Amino acid sequence: MPLPTVIDETHDPALQSWVAGANQPDTDFPIQNLPYGRFRLPGDPAWRIGVAIGDQVLDLAAIGLIPTPDMMALLALDAPRRRALRLRLSQGLRRGSPDEAAWSKAVHPLTQVTLGVPCEVGDYTDFYIGIHHATAIGKLFRPDNPLLPNYRWVPIGYHGRASTIVESGRDVVRPTGQILPAGETTPQVVPCKRLDFELELGVIIGRPNAIGQPIPMQAAEDHVVGITLFNDWSARDIQAWEYQPLGPFLSKSFASTISPWIVTLEALAPFRRAFSRAAGEPEPLPYLDSEANRAAGAIDIAITVTLQTDAMRRAGVAPVTVSRSNFADAAYWTVAQLVAHHTVNGCALRTGDLFGTGTLSGSAPGSSGSMLELSGGGKQPIPLPGNEQRTFLEDGDCIALVGRCSRDGFRSIGFGPCSGTIIGR
Amino acid sequence: MPLPTVIDETHDPALQSWVAGANQPDTDFPIQNLPYGRFRLPGDPAWRIGVAIGDQVLDLAAIGLIPTPDMMALLALDAPRRRALRLRLSQGLRRGSPDEAAWSKAVHPLTQVTLGVPCEVGDYTDFYIGIHHATAIGKLFRPDNPLLPNYRWVPIGYHGRASTIVESGRDVVRPTGQILPAGETTPQVVPCKRLDFELELGVIIGRPNAIGQPIPMQAAEDHVVGITLFNDWSARDIQAWEYQPLGPFLSKSFASTISPWIVTLEALAPFRRAFSRAAGEPEPLPYLDSEANRAAGAIDIAITVTLQTDAMRRAGVAPVTVSRSNFADAAYWTVAQLVAHHTVNGCALRTGDLFGTGTLSGSAPGSSGSMLELSGGGKQPIPLPGNEQRTFLEDGDCIALVGRCSRDGFRSIGFGPCSGTIIGR
Repeated sequence: MPLPTVIDETHDPALQSWVAGANQPDTDFPIQNLPYGRFRLPGDPAWRIGVAIGDQVLDLAAIGLIPTPDMMALLALDAPRRRALRLRLSQGLRRGSPDEAAWSKAVHPLTQVTLGVPCEVGDYTDFYIGIHHATAIGKLFRPDNPLLPNYRWVPIGYHGRASTIVESGRDVVRPTGQILPAGETTPQVVPCKRLDFELELGVIIGRPNAIGQPIPMQAAEDHVVGITLFNDWSARDIQAWEYQPLGPFLSKSFASTISPWIVTLEALAPFRRAFSRAAGEPEPLPYLDSEANRAAGAIDIAITVTLQTDAMRRAGVAPVTVSRSNFADAAYWTVAQLVAHHTVNGCALRTGDLFGTGTLSGSAPGSSGSMLELSGGGKQPIPLPGNEQRTFLEDGDCIALVGRCSRDGFRSIGFGPCSGTIIGR
Repeated sequence: MPLPTVIDETHDPALQSWVAGANQPDTDFPIQNLPYGRFRLPGDPAWRIGVAIGDQVLDLAAIGLIPTPDMMALLALDAPRRRALRLRLSQGLRRGSPDEAAWSKAVHPLTQVTLGVPCEVGDYTDFYIGIHHATAIGKLFRPDNPLLPNYRWVPIGYHGRASTIVESGRDVVRPTGQILPAGETTPQVVPCKRLDFELELGVIIGRPNAIGQPIPMQAAEDHVVGITLFNDWSARDIQAWEYQPLGPFLSKSFASTISPWIVTLEALAPFRRAFSRAAGEPEPLPYLDSEANRAAGAIDIAITVTLQTDAMRRAGVAPVTVSRSNFADAAYWTVAQLVAHHTVNGCALRTGDLFGTGTLSGSAPGSSGSMLELSGGGKQPIPLPGNEQRTFLEDGDCIALVGRCSRDGFRSIGFGPCSGTIIGR
């Protein structure tokens, strides 16, 4: 089996940490998780590299586990070295570890640091692997034939905008753009009226490949560090008018929100699942197939989306869950298949590149990953507390993604925050 | 008038340089040009920042005109500082300049240095502003209605792949990918059979803008440093199968070739032209319109494409010109309009970002900027010397773009090399 699917002592559910918050049952960051991110201390503009542990962050350079606070060097480690670092962190953070005295000087409460985008993103590719999403969107345009012929063969993707990937908590300015009002032939330039979120995951690339050198399925996961939450904000009215024939552009490039922590493939090992296609679906072409992928290509990640309006916040009403989905159920392709497909033409991936999965809508009611789907194309408003309702997002609305992996016999892990509030210009 | 359109003493056609090669009538780099690029000296892996002058390159840090060889810092200069640097270079390189003694120690023959991609590209956006190209491509799919309704209103663009922008002279590996053979329903994974070039220009962004802060037309050219040649290699058979509904992806991301020199907007000032629309075309929306843009938004750049096959090279037959086009004639939108449109939604541009113009096909026969157009969709082979012919590119074919600006009363300037040879995997 490839290394990222191996379960070892770092996954032992009995492990406890000397960081007390890590032993709380509902923490995202028990000692079995150990995700990487970037943080800043008050008054210091320099980014540091940290591991989230309970309600704290451990400074990796301060304890000498990395020579300099260089996230790219950390991400570029090969799988054995990454695994060794994880084991060292697990040992040092365990209750009773001899490292506690030294390491406890290098932990900082998460409430006292600033978290950022987890790494500088070079190229950002957005895929479209949520088949229920693609089907639902297709039905809005082609009720009888919602999926295009290429969908079941090609992991459809397109290039996205890296410069506007923003950290969780950053407000999102409602974009202005060209829209074509119904029945008109001359477009208007107005603030977006159909502003949406997209429930996605982000895949962070580690080791690069040289241009002209495809990465085969067997090596694909060696080039992946881990996974984040990702909200690809979308302006549906701008998108509808601009996207032919070259795809979405300004309807997406105003902002995408990423969570601060890269949850590693190693941490996700207990939550792998067999990957198979439903009856009647074609088998993947050979360059997208491998025994390991069939055995454990999928990952069981539950993702929910909450919405809190400005009125709810003022009234002290908690965010309401508007969607409950799952990566393994929603995705038609695996992470390894995305890497193999992206490079089959010789395209070079670089350390820090990001893949968005595309919207991960489930098949069940209430599992759709966008307002466009949840509101039936804007026709069925979603009821909210206090007699409010929404088709698309209004100023003051806060969308938060929450990710969680759970399995009997293992410690649950989470992904940290991924939220943003819409503000008018 | 905006600064980039001002003609001053640096454009005086009578100016001559103490670098003898700069006074040759056919040089791309007379003292009136002064483009910026990156170069390496033999045995030294460090990139240096240079200005091309005749057959030489002047090392900018070696003569103290920039503090460190940091191309990003140079590109981020504002228009007045950029203009001041140009004036200083012009004065120091003039025949009789007191700087000759010192500066002549910092010039290196172009034949003895390695040239690279002119700057590290953050995000790369490819536009589609060649209306004759868009019409010709549209005709292949929709003979009666080749241009989609949004084309005349929206400067259509999409995100491209930055990691595979390569320097002139680098071989291009023929990509493999999924194609759907005619009449089939199951795709094949094979080397591309319809490999193409695209005649484009590259626009290099200088000063950044903050996310959420659009750049208005009046300020747009303050954010642009200059222009390069750009060949966006394309795999037409992969493109046809993959591009619905999110646009081209692997059909483009295997390689794009850029020329090594950024020809500045200041150098291009004498070649500006009024920008106007033909009768019957709609006027640009207000956010894409300005008095300065109407007065001088277009740039007169002649671009030709040459092809030399492997057999021609072996037989000593010179490259043949397969296309002759011109930026001002081919483009439906100006550089300033691309900046204003790209940021109207609040998208952040960063120093070193690249815009491709899209294929700049002219309206006349022989001015098409791709094999797809030149060969009528692959149906009319282009005859070549030695009884060869081509519809699409074969292994060993070398495509070179050549750019030139000429105007009575001014010194002609050029863009340097932009070539690549196709090789099999």
